[in-house]
Amino acid sequence: MNPSPVRDSLLAAGTELLAQRGYHGTGLKAVLDQVQVPKGSFYHYFASKEAFTAEIIRHYADWLLTLMDTAIASQSLTPRETIRQLYRQMITEFERHDCAQGCLLGNLAAEIGAASSDCRSALNDAYDRWQLRFSSLVTAGQEQGQFRRDLPADTLSALFWNTWEGGILRMKLERHGDPLRHTLDNLLDCLMSP
Amino acid sequence: MNPSPVRDSLLAAGTELLAQRGYHGTGLKAVLDQVQVPKGSFYHYFASKEAFTAEIIRHYADWLLTLMDTAIASQSLTPRETIRQLYRQMITEFERHDCAQGCLLGNLAAEIGAASSDCRSALNDAYDRWQLRFSSLVTAGQEQGQFRRDLPADTLSALFWNTWEGGILRMKLERHGDPLRHTLDNLLDCLMSP
Repeated sequence: MNPSPVRDSLLAAGTELLAQRGYHGTGLKAVLDQVQVPKGSFYHYFASKEAFTAEIIRHYADWLLTLMDTAIASQSLTPRETIRQLYRQMITEFERHDCAQGCLLGNLAAEIGAASSDCRSALNDAYDRWQLRFSSLVTAGQEQGQFRRDLPADTLSALFWNTWEGGILRMKLERHGDPLRHTLDNLLDCLMSP
Repeated sequence: MNPSPVRDSLLAAGTELLAQRGYHGTGLKAVLDQVQVPKGSFYHYFASKEAFTAEIIRHYADWLLTLMDTAIASQSLTPRETIRQLYRQMITEFERHDCAQGCLLGNLAAEIGAASSDCRSALNDAYDRWQLRFSSLVTAGQEQGQFRRDLPADTLSALFWNTWEGGILRMKLERHGDPLRHTLDNLLDCLMSP
């Protein structure tokens, strides 16, 4: 599918609405109203609301992974500080939305992760692509003595993802970024450290 | 509010539907159809769908905390093994539903944790009551040399909660209980250990 301004606008509006209202709370009509296109245009680009959401997951993952790649490529910080800077940047982004929205991927995993096979497959693919990058940071950190070596890098990465996503849920309940900041520091400086 | 069979049936049906379909995916009509009561009866017991959901959160938390209190009162295992047994029991429960539903409290935190103040308050209250019990187990485990002492029991409890809830999200994506079982063991035997 070639890029098109209408398709991009639909994806942008869908991303915003899904982050605010979740999958079941986002009607197709609200998306169409925001972009002001007829229903036919939507179905020209997407087979269903589910396929549309899976495409939004892929777009959101691309954006996150580009952030990661940029941080990794700069090589100006140690692996541990690269991770800290990246995830602090995300907390700042959450705070711009009053800590109310959290991570779109985690939200969709909770709401429809098991129910929709299209979305589940897109979410698992996003996770695999994330883990590839994150594990390489952890491996480098292990080699430099910043992270413990009694657990494989993939296992530490999985534990990090879980703790981070659970921490986002608590952030939404507390409506404050500080607990998530402490969680990040405790992970990097205590639980994951040698 | 005194207990009543109609009220209890509404809460039971609501719990099941919320676990399956989430907040926005659960229409009041589906709840009423399942219990076969008219809408007026519902509003006799609950002011709104939001108040109904907050009450379901309290009921679900009561059930979880009773499980915990029973395990703690038996005192047949060390604090670390008490935790392991309790959470393995929950994984078995998740597996009974094909790892598709996960934890109702985590799901609702993700979907409406920030949006609904009634539900947010019920979820935070459930967390506080959970943390009181869990922290006492962690403190006892620290005193017996099973858990690390460089972080306070409350901090370790918060890290456990986050990792557990994030692990449930991954379980739903992988549709398998084993990754969550490994997460639990890695937490108890590596990350939280001295």
